Amino acid sequence: MAEERNEPHDRSTRPYLIRAIYEWCTDSGYTPYLAVVVNEHTRVPEEFVKDGQIVLNVSFDATSGLKIGNEIIEFAARFGGVAREISVPVDRVAAIYARENGHGMGFEIIETRVEHRPEAKVDEPSAATAPERPKAGGKPKLTVVK
Amino acid sequence: MAEERNEPHDRSTRPYLIRAIYEWCTDSGYTPYLAVVVNEHTRVPEEFVKDGQIVLNVSFDATSGLKIGNEIIEFAARFGGVAREISVPVDRVAAIYARENGHGMGFEIIETRVEHRPEAKVDEPSAATAPERPKAGGKPKLTVVK
Repeated sequence: MAEERNEPHDRSTRPYLIRAIYEWCTDSGYTPYLAVVVNEHTRVPEEFVKDGQIVLNVSFDATSGLKIGNEIIEFAARFGGVAREISVPVDRVAAIYARENGHGMGFEIIETRVEHRPEAKVDEPSAATAPERPKAGGKPKLTVVK
Repeated sequence: MAEERNEPHDRSTRPYLIRAIYEWCTDSGYTPYLAVVVNEHTRVPEEFVKDGQIVLNVSFDATSGLKIGNEIIEFAARFGGVAREISVPVDRVAAIYARENGHGMGFEIIETRVEHRPEAKVDEPSAATAPERPKAGGKPKLTVVK
């Protein structure tokens, strides 16, 4: 069993890095935004999805019961005055960054199959992170971790 | 004062990311290695410095009192049977990665001035991270966060 640790299905660093940037945002007084590429496994308000993607404010003030687990990110938030339960698999997170300056980290989204959802043209990883590209200058830059 | 938060001297994400990869290593059963580019602010055993760099085993088992702060990483460890106090500024960390597979994260080292130390030819950032490049394939890859 010990050998399984070195198998290709290693534990992902992504949830660890998401938590890291979340804490950096919070400690810095910034508002952490989460860019999510939706699919059938994401539970988000569909009416706010645009080009197959939704950007969620995951700050302490905007959420309730936020839990960034190793597999799932869960919280409750109000959208248009209505409380909604949000659930996002960690592997659907395209980026986490500070609203105020765009600094943060981007991740590659791997599509395992083509979906017939005209509103979700997200087959190309670049499309997922393009809107979140940080401004030039400053540090850290948004970096794609494969 | 609130405006200071957006000044160029923002809080660095580096200590947050170092802690993230450290936790990922530990949770995965890997041994976290820290690659450090030495200068006058690093307190490490000089006899183990090679090409201006030292690689430190920072696993729980190999260290005592490890503290990864936002400015300084401190711990005690045994080198050749002798206990030593180690202190490394976070901005001298070139990489943190798992010994077992080389996965982790690299960081750019910014040299603020040229030092006349023949044994520390670390002016080029590429020289700092080159020995720690991960193996091809797998994920996550070592990524330079500027």
